[in-house]
Amino acid sequence: MPSIKGLLIGSPLPTKQMKHARLDKIRALAAFSPDALSSIAYANEEIYLGLVVAGGAGLALALPIGLAIAALLAIVAISYYQTISAYPSGGGSYVVARENLGTLPGLVAGAALLIDYVLTAAVSLTAGVAAIASAFPQLWPYRVVLALGLLAIITLANLRGLRETGTVMALPVYLFLFTYLPMLAYGAICAATGRVAPPALAAPAAVRPLGVLLVLHAFAAGCTALTGVEAISNGVPAFRPPETENARRTLLVMALLMGVLFVGSISLTQLLGVVAGPEETILSALARRLLGSGPAYLLIQAGTMLILAVAANTSFADFPRVAALLAKDGFMPRQLTSLGDRLVFANGIVLLAVGTGALIVLFAGDTHALIPLFAVGVFLAFTLSQSGMVVHWWRERGTGWWVKAALNGLGAVATAITLLIVGASKFADGAWLTILLIPMLLAGFFRIRTHYRSVAEQLSLQGEVPALERPSPPRIVVPISGVHRGVLSAVTYALSLSDHVTALYIEVDPGSGRRVREQWEKWCPQVPLVVVASPYRSIVGPLLDYLDRTDREHHDGRLAAVLLPDLVPARRWHTLLHNQTALLLRTALLFRRRRRGFQPAIIDVPFHLQR
Amino acid sequence: MPSIKGLLIGSPLPTKQMKHARLDKIRALAAFSPDALSSIAYANEEIYLGLVVAGGAGLALALPIGLAIAALLAIVAISYYQTISAYPSGGGSYVVARENLGTLPGLVAGAALLIDYVLTAAVSLTAGVAAIASAFPQLWPYRVVLALGLLAIITLANLRGLRETGTVMALPVYLFLFTYLPMLAYGAICAATGRVAPPALAAPAAVRPLGVLLVLHAFAAGCTALTGVEAISNGVPAFRPPETENARRTLLVMALLMGVLFVGSISLTQLLGVVAGPEETILSALARRLLGSGPAYLLIQAGTMLILAVAANTSFADFPRVAALLAKDGFMPRQLTSLGDRLVFANGIVLLAVGTGALIVLFAGDTHALIPLFAVGVFLAFTLSQSGMVVHWWRERGTGWWVKAALNGLGAVATAITLLIVGASKFADGAWLTILLIPMLLAGFFRIRTHYRSVAEQLSLQGEVPALERPSPPRIVVPISGVHRGVLSAVTYALSLSDHVTALYIEVDPGSGRRVREQWEKWCPQVPLVVVASPYRSIVGPLLDYLDRTDREHHDGRLAAVLLPDLVPARRWHTLLHNQTALLLRTALLFRRRRRGFQPAIIDVPFHLQR
Repeated sequence: MPSIKGLLIGSPLPTKQMKHARLDKIRALAAFSPDALSSIAYANEEIYLGLVVAGGAGLALALPIGLAIAALLAIVAISYYQTISAYPSGGGSYVVARENLGTLPGLVAGAALLIDYVLTAAVSLTAGVAAIASAFPQLWPYRVVLALGLLAIITLANLRGLRETGTVMALPVYLFLFTYLPMLAYGAICAATGRVAPPALAAPAAVRPLGVLLVLHAFAAGCTALTGVEAISNGVPAFRPPETENARRTLLVMALLMGVLFVGSISLTQLLGVVAGPEETILSALARRLLGSGPAYLLIQAGTMLILAVAANTSFADFPRVAALLAKDGFMPRQLTSLGDRLVFANGIVLLAVGTGALIVLFAGDTHALIPLFAVGVFLAFTLSQSGMVVHWWRERGTGWWVKAALNGLGAVATAITLLIVGASKFADGAWLTILLIPMLLAGFFRIRTHYRSVAEQLSLQGEVPALERPSPPRIVVPISGVHRGVLSAVTYALSLSDHVTALYIEVDPGSGRRVREQWEKWCPQVPLVVVASPYRSIVGPLLDYLDRTDREHHDGRLAAVLLPDLVPARRWHTLLHNQTALLLRTALLFRRRRRGFQPAIIDVPFHLQR
Repeated sequence: MPSIKGLLIGSPLPTKQMKHARLDKIRALAAFSPDALSSIAYANEEIYLGLVVAGGAGLALALPIGLAIAALLAIVAISYYQTISAYPSGGGSYVVARENLGTLPGLVAGAALLIDYVLTAAVSLTAGVAAIASAFPQLWPYRVVLALGLLAIITLANLRGLRETGTVMALPVYLFLFTYLPMLAYGAICAATGRVAPPALAAPAAVRPLGVLLVLHAFAAGCTALTGVEAISNGVPAFRPPETENARRTLLVMALLMGVLFVGSISLTQLLGVVAGPEETILSALARRLLGSGPAYLLIQAGTMLILAVAANTSFADFPRVAALLAKDGFMPRQLTSLGDRLVFANGIVLLAVGTGALIVLFAGDTHALIPLFAVGVFLAFTLSQSGMVVHWWRERGTGWWVKAALNGLGAVATAITLLIVGASKFADGAWLTILLIPMLLAGFFRIRTHYRSVAEQLSLQGEVPALERPSPPRIVVPISGVHRGVLSAVTYALSLSDHVTALYIEVDPGSGRRVREQWEKWCPQVPLVVVASPYRSIVGPLLDYLDRTDREHHDGRLAAVLLPDLVPARRWHTLLHNQTALLLRTALLFRRRRRGFQPAIIDVPFHLQR
């Protein structure tokens, strides 16, 4: 019988299929690159929004800023190229920083990464919805709902497993590349031959003076174009063998594509003097300018939306992996390491989906509001990772180590400077939130590890003598509601476990105790019955009091076990017709008794009603 | 430490205080009469709405219809006066019909009563909100929220207990009486002396012809004025001794007040030619006509709203009582008979509150939409109760029995005719829903009783021999997650209970089984360890399979008990850091295993982490 879960997620996969869930290069590019490739969408938009307040003079700076970011991209890509070689088992910033710089920097990188994966998913989804809402402005009010819908689809695809994810994701990525690159080429030809109509909208008048701060601001926002470069270095083990070689090639192809897309679109925008109206992104305005509003334009926007939607997938590929690494080292809940039915870290996927959904709702689906939180974490992780690589090469000191160290050192310096610019210029806009969140996560990591260590100590058998003596059976208390078959069967069960069985009747109706005792003497004289009055008609209170009292009286230090006779109805709706006393008592023993002392062992003995 | 529940509901009362929670006549009138007294509000409104469609000629019939309903009121009140004498322990329609006419008619009356108590609460609350929204039209859009707020307050007051309820309720009832009666007197003087201004609005033109059907329709809707007359006869035991005498007097006072209020307001409305505008009730229009829109008018409307709000209290006094009676006879879930902390039937109160809230939301807080569902049940219960009283007097045949029987017979005939008129004229408007619901409730009653009887049979010791032999201890299976102190302590516990203990390790990580076995041989060689591979990484499936297999192999027909070692963290948040395997297994054993066979006994052995 297929369950709902089975339909949505697929049937469980055996553990030995693990090895086969690997990606070839075509699929790997599709799985790891969408974030990197699609980030041109929001990066361009942010540069535009940052500069347009300074009017035409401001917009003229877009290309220089774009080229600076492209240079930064080249440096970062080379750095990660080296990381892949050094860490074929997956050299995410967390691993590299932890191994080379120490636990604390590693955890800082880990925290930064976790935050950024959530933000990547949220930003990509909202930007994707903005792309399509630029084409259909009537969708603009439904941005939150649309983004959440996309999130749900991607979450399910990821819960189904990595290989299928690769297949699903490949189509939009290649659709985007095979429409966007030709459009850029066409635009370049038009610009070169002067075959384009003059701009429909003039650049708006400057409302702020063009200063260094404004330029740095635009640069900082544009640096979000680099997000996702590190994805491949985290995911090396997901490649088909030879993993390192395949991963490195894929990284180079990806970085090249990123550069072409980013610089190409930003220079075309500037050359053609493209300006966006309200409720439209700058890339939509560029595409509309080149292609009109017909099918070709719609295809571009659909491709943009789809690649942004699957860009969230980079997070779904990496967040659970980083969380699992942290969990394996004892810094996050252990459940994050367990592989689900479909050989993916299902708990991590669900955690990411919940966080992303919350961000989308809290920021009302607005990409521009989310961006300031975003780049801080990315560049913090970059800087730590590159610094770690410098230490790594220095420790190894292989042939030509200093060249490699210098390259990573250059990366570290460049990303550190960028980090400072981003953190300072975007601090008040929201970067403070990320800067605040990182130490909070760190504190959480350490508390969790302290707990796990303390548990391990408490459970350790170190120094114990392997002698398992057999203690005498515990005392058993059986709370009874009257004298009937279910109760007698439970008492019989108790007698099979221990000699020391007491039945306990809580007298809620005054006088009922006498009747129960008479019956008891007839049916079960060998087991002592205790009747406790309950003037306030509570069953729980007197039971707990009785247990406390008798446990104190017995000086062996052992708690009496409580055996609960539990009527199990034959049909589910019958449950509504019974008092659920067993459930009530079990809950009370589990929770309320903790406050008074310790909870005892609880023995549930079901009595099955046949009809 | 006072809990939230304690603050809202008060501390528990001991059972022996039960006798003292009785009402004197002043408080009893306040507790049982609001529904009856306040029903003039919606009854007048319904008569007005029924007649206004026939214009001025229609409205001229209001007084004759009002007088007919007053006559019916007199008959019904006398009938119930006799019921109180005959049933001093509380002669609700359910009890009277059941004892004298048989189980089925009794249950029909019971079902009708339950439905009507819910409707009384919903109608009173929405009509109360309409009264205050007539004074402040800006409240009109918030009627649902306001009605739900009032419902919450009344529910809490009732959960606190009867005596306090009496005090809280007394104020609004007497506020209403001491403002409304003077207003009627003042209106009568004005009308007699001709000192009133001519009507502001003329009666609207007739949109439907004045026919017999229209008059019957208005009569049927106006009969809702009688709801609540029976309340006192249900609640005789809540009066201070001498209960019968006090209850009868209170009933007479109440019926007299009802008559004066109903006929008084309807005749003034007609004499003065009052007509209501949109978003105003007819009683609000009458008060505004007499008193203007100043403080006196506002006081009247506030009084009307408050008495309607507490009218819902009649339901809260009676619904739980009738439900408890039905539950005691095995027709409703047994939980409805248990007295809560404050000596009230808390489950019944909550059930009523949920039903009332649902009606308010479903009917969007509109009294007029709820009314057609309402009167059918009331008059059905009246008819059955009166018929039962006729049989009662005939069976007793005391002095002058035939006079009493004749009076109740008159009541039965009058209410039966009214029932037919109401059912027919309001059928399509919503009465069909009530007529449909009653047989559904009856079917539920009988299914519940069948279940309880079957359980009683299955638990009965009839024919059993009182010989409790002591069986040998059961086999015990201990699922383990590894070899550590917690596991060893659980296995030691198992050994104290039985000789036949098996440890079971589910091997999720291939190869881990061998390591666990090595450790096991060192620490626990005397207990056999079984390792079961789990290729799909599930813990539950292989455990259930193992239990099924071994239970079948052992031919004694007894299931192995499952002992679950349960790590109990020292702090609540630590729970998040552990796998909850014990909880998972317990749930699986409780639910999934039922489908395969029977669930075994489950032994929870906690291991307490100290920090």
